[in-house]
Amino acid sequence: MRRQLTKSRKLPPSPKAWFTAGMKVAFQGVPGAYSELAAHDYFKKQKFDIVPCPEFQDVFIAVTKGKADWGVVPVENSLTGSIHQNFDLLLENRLSIRGELKLRISHSLLALPGASLKTIKHVYSHPQALWQCKKYISSIKGAKPVDYFDTAGSAKHVSELGDLTIAAVASKTAAAHYGLKELKAGIENNKKNFTRFFVLSKTKSKKIPRNPKTSIAFDLKSVPGALHKAIGVFADLKIQLFKVESRPIPGRPWEYIFYLDFAGDVTSKATQEALKALKPLTSKLSILGSYAESD
Amino acid sequence: MRRQLTKSRKLPPSPKAWFTAGMKVAFQGVPGAYSELAAHDYFKKQKFDIVPCPEFQDVFIAVTKGKADWGVVPVENSLTGSIHQNFDLLLENRLSIRGELKLRISHSLLALPGASLKTIKHVYSHPQALWQCKKYISSIKGAKPVDYFDTAGSAKHVSELGDLTIAAVASKTAAAHYGLKELKAGIENNKKNFTRFFVLSKTKSKKIPRNPKTSIAFDLKSVPGALHKAIGVFADLKIQLFKVESRPIPGRPWEYIFYLDFAGDVTSKATQEALKALKPLTSKLSILGSYAESD
Repeated sequence: MRRQLTKSRKLPPSPKAWFTAGMKVAFQGVPGAYSELAAHDYFKKQKFDIVPCPEFQDVFIAVTKGKADWGVVPVENSLTGSIHQNFDLLLENRLSIRGELKLRISHSLLALPGASLKTIKHVYSHPQALWQCKKYISSIKGAKPVDYFDTAGSAKHVSELGDLTIAAVASKTAAAHYGLKELKAGIENNKKNFTRFFVLSKTKSKKIPRNPKTSIAFDLKSVPGALHKAIGVFADLKIQLFKVESRPIPGRPWEYIFYLDFAGDVTSKATQEALKALKPLTSKLSILGSYAESD
Repeated sequence: MRRQLTKSRKLPPSPKAWFTAGMKVAFQGVPGAYSELAAHDYFKKQKFDIVPCPEFQDVFIAVTKGKADWGVVPVENSLTGSIHQNFDLLLENRLSIRGELKLRISHSLLALPGASLKTIKHVYSHPQALWQCKKYISSIKGAKPVDYFDTAGSAKHVSELGDLTIAAVASKTAAAHYGLKELKAGIENNKKNFTRFFVLSKTKSKKIPRNPKTSIAFDLKSVPGALHKAIGVFADLKIQLFKVESRPIPGRPWEYIFYLDFAGDVTSKATQEALKALKPLTSKLSILGSYAESD
């Protein structure tokens, strides 16, 4: 990923930045994680302290409890699909989606100085990153992929192990963080590899963002053609749908919660009409947030 | 899971069973894997040899190359959602879905004889199984979950390590396979924990199954309201939709392939009409198979 440091972005006001020493941004992983790169891209020149969290749910807890002003979580990768855990956590927690960012993901093969492609026997990384670099990894003679809990974390792990037979798949930034060298850059199967992140806060946006998008979640009452009717609400009002995602409802096997992303702010007339028409079809409807569409 | 050994199920004819020494069924994992339990449940009294495969894609390869007559792969869990890799593999390979099975998943905490809840420091299993047992695992004082490549494999691993501080989350059957004892049964967060499996073969079904279901996959041309129109095809023909799943199209960021499960055999008049109406909306439409709905 090449960060465009010159591009400016109008920032939403931080709910706590005026009162505390500095803005704090929580993300899952260790320093050098893609989520941290996404936070820097989103908040541009604004300075912030990082709050690295062990698990995704800790990001939601940190923001809910005020330990961080913002949380940045990945929700979807253009090659491997949605990160469902974060959809579930969006519904379990009461945070608002305040922004989105699409980050070009470029993976590098990192190892200790002194290592080479010939010494590598194991490649550690998050399963999704290993999957995204499957072709390249299988081309390294005698090397096997090994699941690790996250990407930058696998770079940290390699650095700590001090073993020349182990490599990690992570960002170039992670190499600098953990004193590793880049054996090979851009090892992803497909260069059109983007991850979409949500930027979360405890408060809702007070003004209408530019190119607004809204995310909602709802279940469907068990009536014939319910999904067709629900999707039809948006088609009838000529509201553009960006994404439909279904997730299981725990305790109700083979029933689903639908996540919808569509064009428009939640306060707009069209969105209000759509939500009004949708309500009779669902037993639970949640507005997850309105935010500016990412480039 | 309690297997109902008395229940009979009409078996689809095995394409090779009459010519070879015995029927062969491939699945991902080691002996004792939930996929093996699903295969036994599906094929009931019929005897078969197992072909354990390291990865899901190896199951597809084994069936494609004739090393196994059938492949059994999980596609969806009622708590954690779809196993997307297998949806992608269904589209990449040319196998037919010939059956489905819904298996009640009951996880046990397994450890070496001599271990107890007090000795356990690490709990190994597949990330989805750990997630499904999160509440119970976090209640074991001082124990941490550790991702492992599969459930029965983690039981095998614990058995091989010979370490009293390590436990695995796997089936009761896996305990018997690897000489472990059950420290606690039924540790899943939610008892309504089912996994849906597809039974795959190289050949299509020649007769119409009882309570037929059909699975298809298609992309959508970029026209306004395309998803509404596609879903509408089924609503207009009063065809019941069971599931809609979307997956990213590699190389076309933020565009999706839709997987649909609906009532009816592919040869039925209604299905044929639906497919005819769907075709102009898509640039690629694949029939994944027709099969009997599982109880």
